[in-house]
Parts: sequence; C-alpha cells; structure tokens
Amino acid sequence: MPDENLIRVPFDLMKQQFYDVLIGLKFPKEKAKTCAAIFAGNTLDGIHSHGINRFPRFVDYIKKGYIKPQASPKRIAQAGAIEQWDGQLAPGPSNAVQATGHAMELASENGLGLVALANTNHWMRGGAYGWQCAQEGFAFIGWTNTIANLPAWGAKTCKLGNNPLVIAIPYQDEAIVLDMALSQFSYGKMEDLQKKGEELPLPGGFNKNDQLSTIPAEILESGRPLPIGYWKGAGLSLLLDLLATLLSAGLSTSAISRQNKAEYGVSQVFIAIDLKQLDNFPVMEQTIQAVLDDFQSAEKVSPESSLRYPGQRVLITREINKIKGIPVDAGLWEQIKNL
Amino acid sequence: MPDENLIRVPFDLMKQQFYDVLIGLKFPKEKAKTCAAIFAGNTLDGIHSHGINRFPRFVDYIKKGYIKPQASPKRIAQAGAIEQWDGQLAPGPSNAVQATGHAMELASENGLGLVALANTNHWMRGGAYGWQCAQEGFAFIGWTNTIANLPAWGAKTCKLGNNPLVIAIPYQDEAIVLDMALSQFSYGKMEDLQKKGEELPLPGGFNKNDQLSTIPAEILESGRPLPIGYWKGAGLSLLLDLLATLLSAGLSTSAISRQNKAEYGVSQVFIAIDLKQLDNFPVMEQTIQAVLDDFQSAEKVSPESSLRYPGQRVLITREINKIKGIPVDAGLWEQIKNL
Repeated sequence: MPDENLIRVPFDLMKQQFYDVLIGLKFPKEKAKTCAAIFAGNTLDGIHSHGINRFPRFVDYIKKGYIKPQASPKRIAQAGAIEQWDGQLAPGPSNAVQATGHAMELASENGLGLVALANTNHWMRGGAYGWQCAQEGFAFIGWTNTIANLPAWGAKTCKLGNNPLVIAIPYQDEAIVLDMALSQFSYGKMEDLQKKGEELPLPGGFNKNDQLSTIPAEILESGRPLPIGYWKGAGLSLLLDLLATLLSAGLSTSAISRQNKAEYGVSQVFIAIDLKQLDNFPVMEQTIQAVLDDFQSAEKVSPESSLRYPGQRVLITREINKIKGIPVDAGLWEQIKNL
Repeated sequence: MPDENLIRVPFDLMKQQFYDVLIGLKFPKEKAKTCAAIFAGNTLDGIHSHGINRFPRFVDYIKKGYIKPQASPKRIAQAGAIEQWDGQLAPGPSNAVQATGHAMELASENGLGLVALANTNHWMRGGAYGWQCAQEGFAFIGWTNTIANLPAWGAKTCKLGNNPLVIAIPYQDEAIVLDMALSQFSYGKMEDLQKKGEELPLPGGFNKNDQLSTIPAEILESGRPLPIGYWKGAGLSLLLDLLATLLSAGLSTSAISRQNKAEYGVSQVFIAIDLKQLDNFPVMEQTIQAVLDDFQSAEKVSPESSLRYPGQRVLITREINKIKGIPVDAGLWEQIKNL
C-alpha cells in the first residue's frame, strides 16, 4: 500500500475499536475483550493478514451465522491429560485462548497436556497461542486444519489444507515462535504480489503446464500452490489433519470442505509442556542462547541476510509499533470504524 | 545398482545374520535381537539406506566406541507424564524401541506420554517407532536432532540438522506413517544420483552461485542442500532441535557438532497418545477411510501419479519382500557376512 494512505493507530485505540464493534454484535464482554486483544495484538506484531485485514471477514462470518458470539466451548470428554472440547462454533480466537489455558492447566498437573477442539473457527494467527504458552514457561505445539486449499503431491485439485503448525518455547521473557502454514506462500501474499505486478522470490506453485512458477497469476490460475517441501509438506498436512480430526472427534479438511459453505467448524490441537517442572529448567536459557549464538554465527549468503530465529522479527515490529502506533491503511481504518 | 548384482535374502536370514554380527560385538542377547529386528525390518520395508546399507557404519561406530553395546538407558527424572532418560550412548535402535515403549506406558496411564532421550545414537529409521506405536493403537509424534548438515535460510554454512520428524496413526491393523527429514533430499539420494549421472527431479539445493539447482554434484560441492519449504523447514529444524535439547537435557545439534567427531550423542523426543481411551476410538477407522478416499479422489497430474498416503508404499514393498526375499546387492551381503 502506498505510504500516503498509511496512518498510525495506537494499540489501545485499535483494541477499543474492535471491542466496540464486537459488543455491537452482541458479544459477551469477556469474549469481546479476548477477541479484540487477539486481533489488535496480531496487528501490533505486524501480522495484519490475521489481524485488522481479516477483521471485516470475521464480522461478516458473525453476521452470516458461521461464528456464534454467544456460544461457549463445552468439554466433551477427558482421558488423563487429554481433553476433548466442542467449540460450538464460538469465535475462533477466544476458543483458542481458552483451549490453550486448559492445556496449560493439564500440563501443570501432568507435565504435559493436550486439548483437542472440534467445531471451532479460524484462530487467526496460531502464533498468538504459542506466545501465550511460552510467556508462562510452557512449550507449545499446536495446529489447526483448514478448508481444502492445497493439492496433494501429484494432484491437480486441492484436497488438503494448509494446516498451520505452531511450535513455541520461552526465551528471555518472550518466546521463540514458529508459526507456519504448510503452503509455501499464502494466497494473500500471492494476490498482493499480483496486484503489484511482482514475482515470488522462489517457486511457489505450478502453472497450468505443470511447471514450477514464480508468477502469482499463473499459480492462482492453476489453483496449485506448492506444499512446503513438495510431497513432504503434503504428507505433513494429511497427518496433521487426521490427528486433529481424530483427537477432537471433529471435522476433517475433507468434511469441512464438503459440508460448509465457508471455512468454519475446523479442528485444532493444543499441546502444552510445562518446562518449569524439569530439573534443567534453570539452565534452559543458557542452552537456548548457545544454540542461537551458533545459529547466527553462520556465514551469510549476503550481507543483507538476517539469520533471524522464528519470532525475532515480530518482537522488533512489536516494539516499534508500540511506540509509533500501528501502521494501517487509512481506508481500512475508516471501514473498521463503520462496521 | 544393476540387477545382475541383486540377490534376494529372506527376512529371517537377514535378521539372524545381523544378530550374529552383534553377538560377536558383545551385545547382550536382548539388545542384539532388538537391533537386528530394526535393521532387518527397515530393509524389508525397502528403506535400505537406514537398514542394511547403514549396518557397516553401525558396526564401525561400535568398534570406534561411539556406540556402547553394553550400556543401558537410565531414567533421570520424571514430571507427570514426562520422563527424561539418559541414553548412555547405547545403540540408537534399542534405545528408541525402549523409549517408545515407555512413552506408550505413560500414555496408558495419562492419555499421553512423552519420553525425552539424551545421549542416544542414530535411531536409523524413525518411522519404525511410529509403526511400533500405531500397531498398539497409539498415535506417535517423535523426532531426533542430528549433527549439523543443513544451512539456515540465508546462511552458507550448515548450523542446523535435518532432524527427522515422524507422525504416525493406526490404520487397518497397520499404520499411516510420515517419516521425513527436513532436508529436501538426503545426501545419500544425491550421491546415488550423482553416481548415475542423473539430476534431481526438483531443485534440491543451491549451487556455488546461490542459484537453486537440480544437479547433485553442484549441491554437494556447495554444501547447501535445501531445507523443505526454504525458510520454513529451517525454522522447523531449529525449533525441533531446541525442544529435543531442552526436554532431554541433552546435546543440541550445535553441541553435537562441536563436541563429537561423528554423529553420536543425539537428543530425541517420543510422544505417544493413547487413542483407545477416546470415546470416538471405535469410529476412527471410518473417519480415516473417508479422508483417504477423498484424498485419493483428486484429479491426478498424470495417469502415473500415485496419490499414496505416507507409509502406503512401504506396506506394498513389505509384502513383496516377505514373499520374494529382500533385494540386496550381492557384494554388500558378502560384506555383511564377513563383519
């Protein structure tokens, strides 16, 4: 977006704006607060695609009845440190915050805990729940399935989801957070570059002639984005979908795509591991630092190469945006205020 | 290898041969039995690279003292459903079988269980432990770190491991098993193709001019194989290494590479989830079948495309080799017999 359309919105103001919209949509106060904090926090961290940019669609799905603001997740079954919950189609972010909290409670009692959540909604940015866990001294492994949007290896039609996977560990009162979808590039990224007339930096899918391509328009036309690692990411997507579906007794990517008009009613898994209970907890910080120091001592491809660990850039963005306000397209901000 | 050098060795004969060699190396009987079964089983499944082809190096590492046949893993600490074990540099396959067994015991008691294993050795084919779990009705998530063999994104030198990740679920008295290293192609695969003068089917690394390449010799020369999904696989490698290191209180990829002459003393994680304790266990088979049916109904890129689920080809190979014997290079078989 051109710079002249950018304004800077303070975090608290953005959160309040989201809150007001959600209250207008009959959200209970606590749930409005949680969802507003997730949307504003994601945007503060620079993840606009799963923050403010996605808020209008979130509102649209509420109006269409796909997301039910007044519903609350319900525990269906427990087996030791595993809990199965039915998300009741309540908002994805508040369901995910609650599931993460339960996973941490289970982990506090059992060393580790797993919450599987069926019939929930898009959690926006999975990394948010990794941060939530890590800031309390827990490691986190979690993932969600999605509607079908990725072809299996050797397939032309999309039967797999891009099923984002999140792994987080505590580090320096903050976190190292990997948050990755299993498609090489998101549709949003490809559409952005297409609008600008730019190419992808690396092959991101196949064109209609079965050739790897860096041209977003070609990939969007063929509908064949690349899974990470070719057949490997496709296999990982299938296994994460099956695990989320079996553990939550929820809908698979296949079932979501067949039954629902839009992406709702997804299945998610939240695993928390209580690192504080391990004898080596006091030296973990040093262990991590030694690994990162070595990681960042590698010879770089070019002086511009960054060698950042996952989540490192987010922290920098967060600090800048806290001080300067969050950069937002002025038109989008007007749209949000009028929701 | 040319067909004229291929012989077919019955599974039981191969297992007995491995067993005899290991007994000669002063393995306790139980441990020799377990390791022989893993090496022969991997070869039966067609994974020669982590079966018979690797057996001479396994023997070499024993002779060099990197692997200690008479050592036994020791439980160091427990926190609920988490156990930390010290592998004591005992053989990787028997350590991994034992750790998987303990993870299943913990899962039987707690719904899920996690065993983290420090100071262990190469587990050969991680998928073997996925099959072990799945055949008892457990889902499995496990991974190992390795010596540094993969560059971070933006780096020329290898500071990451290819850290194989395994996810398995039970299916039809067998299993669906994803077993993938985080490098796009293994060094073994690239060396094989180089010998034959063939190219990789897809880009597998960078050449010395920082260009993606399909030519094995170029990638082996630059020492820059491609992580799956470019920066995504690199990030996943770092997180899996950190988690394995912290959970086991063991050595990181960085520490292994610094301290050890060869790849030994690695860190591993074994998570078992007892699906049998979930109320929806009786219908899981149908759920999986519906997902696989949809997966395999996709339009294929070409009539030759297979659309197999992870582990499916292994089953076919296993059945053929059980009947016809395991295809092995005659020279290698002679070498094994003379170990």
